[in-house]
This record gives sequence, structure tokens and C-alpha cells, in this order.
Amino acid sequence: MTTSTMRAEIAEQPEALRRTLAELLPLRGEIEALGRSTRHVLFIARGSSDNAAVYGQYLLQVHGGRLAALGAPSVATSYGAKADLSGVLAVAVSQSGKTEEIVETMRWAADCGARTVGVTNGADSPLANESDVALVTRAGSEVAVPATKTYSTQLAALAVLALGLGGGSLDPGDLQRVPDALDEILAAPQDSLEEITERLTAVQGMVVTGRGIALTTALETALKLKEACYLHAMGMSYADLLHGPIAILDPRTPVLLAAASEGPVLQGTIALAERARSAGSPVFGIGGKELAAATDLSLQVPDLPEWVAPMGLILPAQLLTERLARRLGSDPDVPRGLNKVTQTTG
Amino acid sequence: MTTSTMRAEIAEQPEALRRTLAELLPLRGEIEALGRSTRHVLFIARGSSDNAAVYGQYLLQVHGGRLAALGAPSVATSYGAKADLSGVLAVAVSQSGKTEEIVETMRWAADCGARTVGVTNGADSPLANESDVALVTRAGSEVAVPATKTYSTQLAALAVLALGLGGGSLDPGDLQRVPDALDEILAAPQDSLEEITERLTAVQGMVVTGRGIALTTALETALKLKEACYLHAMGMSYADLLHGPIAILDPRTPVLLAAASEGPVLQGTIALAERARSAGSPVFGIGGKELAAATDLSLQVPDLPEWVAPMGLILPAQLLTERLARRLGSDPDVPRGLNKVTQTTG
Repeated sequence: MTTSTMRAEIAEQPEALRRTLAELLPLRGEIEALGRSTRHVLFIARGSSDNAAVYGQYLLQVHGGRLAALGAPSVATSYGAKADLSGVLAVAVSQSGKTEEIVETMRWAADCGARTVGVTNGADSPLANESDVALVTRAGSEVAVPATKTYSTQLAALAVLALGLGGGSLDPGDLQRVPDALDEILAAPQDSLEEITERLTAVQGMVVTGRGIALTTALETALKLKEACYLHAMGMSYADLLHGPIAILDPRTPVLLAAASEGPVLQGTIALAERARSAGSPVFGIGGKELAAATDLSLQVPDLPEWVAPMGLILPAQLLTERLARRLGSDPDVPRGLNKVTQTTG
Repeated sequence: MTTSTMRAEIAEQPEALRRTLAELLPLRGEIEALGRSTRHVLFIARGSSDNAAVYGQYLLQVHGGRLAALGAPSVATSYGAKADLSGVLAVAVSQSGKTEEIVETMRWAADCGARTVGVTNGADSPLANESDVALVTRAGSEVAVPATKTYSTQLAALAVLALGLGGGSLDPGDLQRVPDALDEILAAPQDSLEEITERLTAVQGMVVTGRGIALTTALETALKLKEACYLHAMGMSYADLLHGPIAILDPRTPVLLAAASEGPVLQGTIALAERARSAGSPVFGIGGKELAAATDLSLQVPDLPEWVAPMGLILPAQLLTERLARRLGSDPDVPRGLNKVTQTTG
């Protein structure tokens, strides 16, 4: 099989993260100042950026002592509603920084009284130029349609945001360890990757799940598999899965579980593996040793503290997506029906 | 085919809504008072109740001038985080009112300084007993596992909440029209329902979509089809669909669109129908005449103002789920692997 631009961009992530951290860690003072004048956080994003925002949402709530939530852009752009957003920090996340819906919603938030942060890979974009604080990621140019390095550098930017807003509860050293861990993942033998790829070739639908800080990984993996492999991959928290959707599990419906190697949701993820197996589902994992022992096949990543783990967990999922797309005869760089910058109509 | 308890409970919805509105409309004064001491709204829910909360989220933002968001229970129950929730109105939604995770998260919100509303069908439940204002729905006992009348009465309770918090911008008369509209839907000829059911029997995965105030319908329909028909039904806003997942559309993957017969997202929903058709997807609809004209087959409902429309839109979706489950040889009342009250583990 020939390689792809997506595969090359996946491999650029350790360097992209190093550049991004070098750029953004010095901005912590600015973020702290913004934090003092705001309380709740509202994320504005779509697609992979929205999945990154889910990471930000959990980080700021679990480690930042703040209420953080995902906004609904249609409230601003379709309905033209108004709200009092004084004291709110609106964090708009967009790879290009020029998706109209996101830019318009950020402007709306500012008009409603919010302070704004723009997280974007577009240094000269409206999102970077118009936000109170711009966290410009240094992923470099991303050409493949499925976001890889722009997503992981968004996670890094949101981790820096949490460092700035979290009042010293998080260790920046944890974040500095991530790029080397990504190098390790890229250098590791890929037997399980091959095997899971083969097992997924005949699959039409599957569940990708996790919880809490690793939920971003489940959602982003499901999105990748949908957009590049046309797989009916349903991403959701395993708590939501238990409330009804778990009925779909059966031998034709594999489950892919993502979890950090530590943290309060690991045991629940392992319990879910058992429950999925008893429903007959093939059970795959992305995580550490303990999760691997509970699954049929697992993509192992080096141990990282839970709060930075999603930057590592997504990498095997990106590799799996790229390989499966090619295995299925698709070009992962240019999925059918998609452009690099999406404009929502209507 | 024999009938089911689920089918009987679907038919009880007009009466359940009449009882619920008679019970809750008089509480508007109490809700108004709570509104004066709070600003942002945080919903706490899972499953069908979470889908109802999505309706509340849009209603309060579009018509209530408030920021409203969905909370993440794991922040409280798994991570034990703290946040300053003074001035926040936490709205916990649970059919039984005794799902531990939801009760625990509502207690957590109160401990963090929030005022609380409990929306539940459990009159003597912890959720009803411990919230500052209890909006107890009068659905009557619901026996089938898939929620039907408890969901639609939750919508009614959230509509009353919006009336109380909205400062007079909404007309209670709109809400009073809903039960009669449901009677009309139940009495209407069901040719399209039969036909769509047949078209879905060989389908493994599909997309259910809508936007804004009708997003709740798309999410709840997808959940129903997953839990009772084991269909890989992916529910999402059509704005999110455009950001990647749209690549999955093809002739084996139908799209079901839900939209009110008026409102700013109707044209976008119709545009999506065209785009789905050009990808080869069978296109089905639930809504008014204009949407029907854009689809292959449509379940039509009487025109209702957009803000109350979801109480009507869900009914044909429930009928479709019940019929498809039986057509596939499953018992819609007792889906595999589910209990009526779900407790999230871990």
C-alpha cells in the first residue's frame, strides 16, 4: 500500500506539539489575567475542534474549578438570540480560524459581554485577530481533510488554557512529557494495529466509547472513522451508552474503548469491556496495560497523567483510521463529500 | 402483529400532556421567582431525559435570553470536582427521579451554590423531594423500557419552565394546542409509516438529524431506534453532520430529517435533504408539508409553532420505532440488555 499525506501529518505531531507548547506556555500570564475577570467557560466549535473542546470542558471542570460547557452556535447564527454573557469566557476553537459560523458566534458572544479566547492554527485568521487572547497552534499546514495534528495541537492549547486558569493545580512538566511519548508511539511495533484493521474491514457499524477526560478521544476516533472509512462509528460516553444504546451491542458491532492508564473512570471502562463481551461484541482498546488485559486486542500507549493522556490516546486511533481507509480502498486524504474548511449552511 | 405496551403508552400521550400541563402551568410564579435569583442554566440528565434537556437548552437560549448548557455528571460523581455555581439554576431531569448519578449530581450542584429544579415523573422521588422547585410530570406509570410519554411530558415541563423564565415572550396558548395535535397524529392514516418501516427492515445504520429546537427529536429518535430496533442510528445536528460525518452517506445509509413546519432552520434542513439525496441516501422526513416535498417519504404532523413542535414531532418517530421493532421480530417493550432505571457504574 502507498502512504498518504494523512500518515505523514500524523507523524509530524511530536514536533507540532513541541512548537505549539513553546509558543503557548509563555502566554499563561495573559490567560491568568483573563481568568480573574471571568468565571464560567463557554466553548464554540464544530467537528474535530468540537471534540477538542470536550477535552477543554472536562479539564476546566475537573482541574480548573469552573463550570465549562459547549455552546450551540445556531442560537447565535440561526436564531439571533441574545443573552447576558458578562463574566463568561468564550473559547472559540477552529483549525482554520475562518469558519464563518464559529467566527460569527464568537463575535456574538463578545457582543453579549463575554471575554474571548481563539484557539486556531490560522495565525492571521479572524479568530486569531478578533479574540482577546489568541492561542495560535503551530501545527504547520495541514493538507489531508481529516484533522490530525491540528486536533492534537488544539488539545495542547487547551491544556495550556487549563494551566493558566487552573490556579497552579496542574504540573506543566506533565505536558512537556507528551511529545516524547508520541515519538514512542510512532516507533512502537504495530502488530495489533494490523490485526484490528483487518478485524474492522467487514464491519459496518461500531461503538467508540470512553468517559470524562478521555471522552474527547472516543468522539474524535468515531469522527475519524466516519469521515475517512465511512464506518458507522458511534462515539459516546460509556455512561450514555448504558442509558439505552447498549442494546445495539452484538457480534457484528465491535466496541473500541479509550482510557488513560490512571484516573477514576478507568475501572468503569474495564467494566464496560466485560459487559460488551457478554453481549458478544468484539472488544478493542486504546490505553494502558490494565485496559489491554480486558480487551481482545489493544493499541497500547505509554503511561501519561490522565489530564494530558488524550494527546497520546488519539495517535493510534489516527493510525488505525488511515490504515483502514487505505485497506478499504479509499483515499484518507480526500474523503468523499468533504472540504477542508466546512461552512454550515442554513 | 400483536400490539405492545409501548404502543399503548404512545397513545396515552395526549392525556398525559393534558394532565401534566394542568399540574405544572400553575407553577409559573414559583419558576419566575427562581428565575430572578439565577442567571445561567445547567441541565443534568442521561438518556431520553438528556434528549429532553437538549430541548430545554435551546428553548431557554432562544426564547429565554439565558445561557443554558448540558452538564457532565462525571465531573461530580467520578472526579468529585468543585465549582462556584452561585447564580446557576441546575435543572435535573430523570424519569424515575431516582437514578443515583443524577440525584448525586443535583446534590453536588446545590452544594456548589446552585438553585435546583427537578423534572421527574416520580412524585415521591429524591429528585422531587430535594429540588427547590419540583416539576412533577403526570405521565402515569410507564412500563415499556423505551421512554415515550415520560419523554414528551418532560418536554412539556421544560416548556413550562421556559414560560416561567422567559419573561412573557412565549404564548401559553401554543402549549395548550399540543395535546389536540397529538390526537390528530394518532388518528391520521399511516401509509407512510408502513412504507418507511419496510424500507428500514434491511438497514443496519442510518443518520437522524435536525437542528436547533428540533435537535431533541433527532437525538431521541436515534436513541429509540438504537434501543428498540438495534439499528445503528446516529443522531446529530445537521451542522455537525456537515463537519465530517456526512462522508458516511450512501445508498445503504438512509437519512431521517426532523423539522418544525416553521422557523429559521427549516430551509437548512431542506438543503440537507438535497445533499443527502445527491449522495444516494434514501431521505425520510418528520415534519410539515414543505419538508415532505423535499423527502422520498415523510411522516407529516400538524403545524405547531416551532417552540412546541418537538412534542408533536416525536410521536411518529415513536410509532415507527415500535412498528419496526415488531417487524424485526423484537419485543419493543423489553429491549435486550436494558432495565427501566439505569444506574451508571464506575
